[in-house]
Amino acid sequence: MTEQTTDDVARRAAAAYPATSQAAPAVRADALRRAAATLGDHTDELVALAQEETGLADARLRGELTRTRVQLRLFAGVVEDGTYLDARLDEADPDFVLGPRPDLRRTLWPVGPVLVFAASNFPFAFSVAGGDTAAALAAGCPVVVKAHPGHPRLAERVAALVSGALTEAGLPDGALQRVAGQDAGVALLEHPAVRAASFTGSQRVGQLLAARAAARPDPIPFHGELGSVNPVLVSAGALRERGDELLAGYVASVSGSAGQLCTKPGFLLVPEGTAYDDAVVAAASAVAEHRLLDRAIADRYDARVAAALGADGVRVVHAGHLRRDADGHGWATPTIAAAPLDAVRAAGPALLDEVFGPFSVVVEYPEGTDLAGVVAELFPGNLTVTLHLGAREDAPVDRLARHAGRLLFGGWPTGVAVTPAMQHGGPWPATTTDATSVGTAAIGRFLRGVAYQDAPQSLLPPPLRDDNPWNVPRTLSPRGASAAW
Amino acid sequence: MTEQTTDDVARRAAAAYPATSQAAPAVRADALRRAAATLGDHTDELVALAQEETGLADARLRGELTRTRVQLRLFAGVVEDGTYLDARLDEADPDFVLGPRPDLRRTLWPVGPVLVFAASNFPFAFSVAGGDTAAALAAGCPVVVKAHPGHPRLAERVAALVSGALTEAGLPDGALQRVAGQDAGVALLEHPAVRAASFTGSQRVGQLLAARAAARPDPIPFHGELGSVNPVLVSAGALRERGDELLAGYVASVSGSAGQLCTKPGFLLVPEGTAYDDAVVAAASAVAEHRLLDRAIADRYDARVAAALGADGVRVVHAGHLRRDADGHGWATPTIAAAPLDAVRAAGPALLDEVFGPFSVVVEYPEGTDLAGVVAELFPGNLTVTLHLGAREDAPVDRLARHAGRLLFGGWPTGVAVTPAMQHGGPWPATTTDATSVGTAAIGRFLRGVAYQDAPQSLLPPPLRDDNPWNVPRTLSPRGASAAW
Repeated sequence: MTEQTTDDVARRAAAAYPATSQAAPAVRADALRRAAATLGDHTDELVALAQEETGLADARLRGELTRTRVQLRLFAGVVEDGTYLDARLDEADPDFVLGPRPDLRRTLWPVGPVLVFAASNFPFAFSVAGGDTAAALAAGCPVVVKAHPGHPRLAERVAALVSGALTEAGLPDGALQRVAGQDAGVALLEHPAVRAASFTGSQRVGQLLAARAAARPDPIPFHGELGSVNPVLVSAGALRERGDELLAGYVASVSGSAGQLCTKPGFLLVPEGTAYDDAVVAAASAVAEHRLLDRAIADRYDARVAAALGADGVRVVHAGHLRRDADGHGWATPTIAAAPLDAVRAAGPALLDEVFGPFSVVVEYPEGTDLAGVVAELFPGNLTVTLHLGAREDAPVDRLARHAGRLLFGGWPTGVAVTPAMQHGGPWPATTTDATSVGTAAIGRFLRGVAYQDAPQSLLPPPLRDDNPWNVPRTLSPRGASAAW
Repeated sequence: MTEQTTDDVARRAAAAYPATSQAAPAVRADALRRAAATLGDHTDELVALAQEETGLADARLRGELTRTRVQLRLFAGVVEDGTYLDARLDEADPDFVLGPRPDLRRTLWPVGPVLVFAASNFPFAFSVAGGDTAAALAAGCPVVVKAHPGHPRLAERVAALVSGALTEAGLPDGALQRVAGQDAGVALLEHPAVRAASFTGSQRVGQLLAARAAARPDPIPFHGELGSVNPVLVSAGALRERGDELLAGYVASVSGSAGQLCTKPGFLLVPEGTAYDDAVVAAASAVAEHRLLDRAIADRYDARVAAALGADGVRVVHAGHLRRDADGHGWATPTIAAAPLDAVRAAGPALLDEVFGPFSVVVEYPEGTDLAGVVAELFPGNLTVTLHLGAREDAPVDRLARHAGRLLFGGWPTGVAVTPAMQHGGPWPATTTDATSVGTAAIGRFLRGVAYQDAPQSLLPPPLRDDNPWNVPRTLSPRGASAAW
């Protein structure tokens, strides 16, 4: 894509903004539901294309497509509900405690055209019509998706289907656009018309893009989900109660989708002396090989595993393989390593940085170790921290909550529920902002507050008009209320 | 302050965090109200100190202290109300549309120790016990204030009074601390224990600090309010209806507190051919001289006014003076300049950048000018844009809303109401994030989402427990609800 056409895309998005931002909730909701419907109508075609381009399994892709459609419909409900606008109306008050107060009304409002960098590992749910796009469209923002090169034909097809659905619902042509290529992505990230960006991918690329967004003459919000090692803390009590089930669950969580998930547990912390080898080997050797998403990911996986295994004090519990097929694709089975806590501490980034793929490390900690302290020291920023406790065991939950967006008590962090209470975002490097990219709260990333002072009714946006044509919930501060302050 | 003691301050804040974050709403509200009360009890002493150090007028300072106390009490109400936590409870659902869903609960939670850079121009309301501190304490965050050197003794006294009040309410010693000096501020901004920062001041300093926050190994949110020129757009109709009142109001808004307000109108756009000189001169020549806050501000004001007046096509409508007293302080009366729109466009930053002090420019625009286009081109990021329209005149409100946090219809942007619907934050360079620093929504800057999956009741934070001990409003997603998605 040339510079000229990148500029055209940005201008088209800017031109679409008045219509997308002012479209009534019913129109936006209808558009999202039509997008979900058309994806459903083309399931077989899309899943076949995705499978060919990504190597992900049929069942996984069908499930992911369903999730993607549910996300779109979930946000349709968010738009219709209107609570997300946080509309506030302060009545003019001549007796306000600080002197006469004007009529003041505030709503959250779509930030403008949004640039979405698609991920490779979820060709539906974090790609062209994925969660970021659904949230931004729900907010009323035109979206430009920078397609991931890992599934270019799928991206093109989904973009065509969804844009068509949006247009049928009455949204303008530029409501959803797709661009390809790194240069186009960067050019758009730096384009004045683009008002916010979201990204799901590696820490290295995310940091580069975040720096670009911050270096603009007018910096814009950059919501990046960069990586997470998702430590799982296991107590002696939990192992006694359900050791075998726990270790099998661990290997399954590490291996699903060949470990190419942002919530894959990268470290399992168990008490010194735990006998885990047999259970891990039994589970890991039963896992069928799985293709890695693309050749570059296979290369990086190979290098990262070698670096991690090369650290002093690290031993292999189960050695997986990485086989190259005739096309150069890598096919992997899980590799599980182990190391004493002191060795992990000494190894540094070679072992501590995320390994994207089916690799994980069992860390053996001495009795009496302060596990929250270990998390703070070695794994300070995560999407998730998981605790496996014995019955009625206590844990320093408040300290652990500083290092993750989601705390799990039992279970496994992979398999992220798309629901109102999800938080998929945590301290650096998990995400670049405190926002979530999964669940209904994700819409907040694409909104900003705007207040209107003493505005005539005809010039107010619908959520703030006296007659409340969008019928949104509003918080009222009537005159006289300040007497209670 | 030495590096050692800066580290001590950060550690004390970190040590206070468990107690401040877990303090019941009643305790935090009581602490905020006690802080307001002690400031009220010491009004005469504090106002005298402030007057000596800042040169601001007695009435203005008394009003500002009242506002500061109201802010603290307003946030006490926010804490008691609990809506700000956005607590969400998703019931476990075996029939969830995407497969069995766990019990998932999410609340916003205090981000950790917050560093507040105090402003010079509001020695009470944006300083040690100002809006940022009130919002952060309300959220449950320990606060370290980097005092402004413009009012060091006042800062010390307010810190002592307010810390005492917080401690009496049961908050720990480190709930509010004060440091002085640029080095201490930067050291704390880079300290691992500090989890967010806020700033009110110049664009130059704000950009430097924002870059430091972003360059940390673990970048943290930096909420900076950096500057704004607050254009006021006047139609021919408005001038016909109330020209004299409007021009007098303009000069008053430019001159109040010697123009040292972030919402001072820097530009008044009027139709070519408007006769405004006499009214402006009459109003401006009646303004008594006012001390500028400190010598450095006087120096910068002098230089900026000279640069602005040196631009081609700029003429002086009313020449104010800048007198130095024996202590080197600057005393100013307003200077109002004027220029045709084309000259403003050609002059660039010399004229367009904010001038902090009682200076403003009347811009004459040709009939038929697209004023929203002018704002987008010349004044893209503002705290406020003000419209003075004639009766029933229309305006491109949606386009203007992209360039300001608050749109006013009539009136003047100075005098910011502290209420739920206020938005004091706008596109760059007005603020570094989309957040507001005034009004109850300001608490959102110091919170982050945390989700708990399948947590035992005893390990949940109070807002998420079944018995809801803090009695906060919550949004429930019962099992079965996803069928409607």
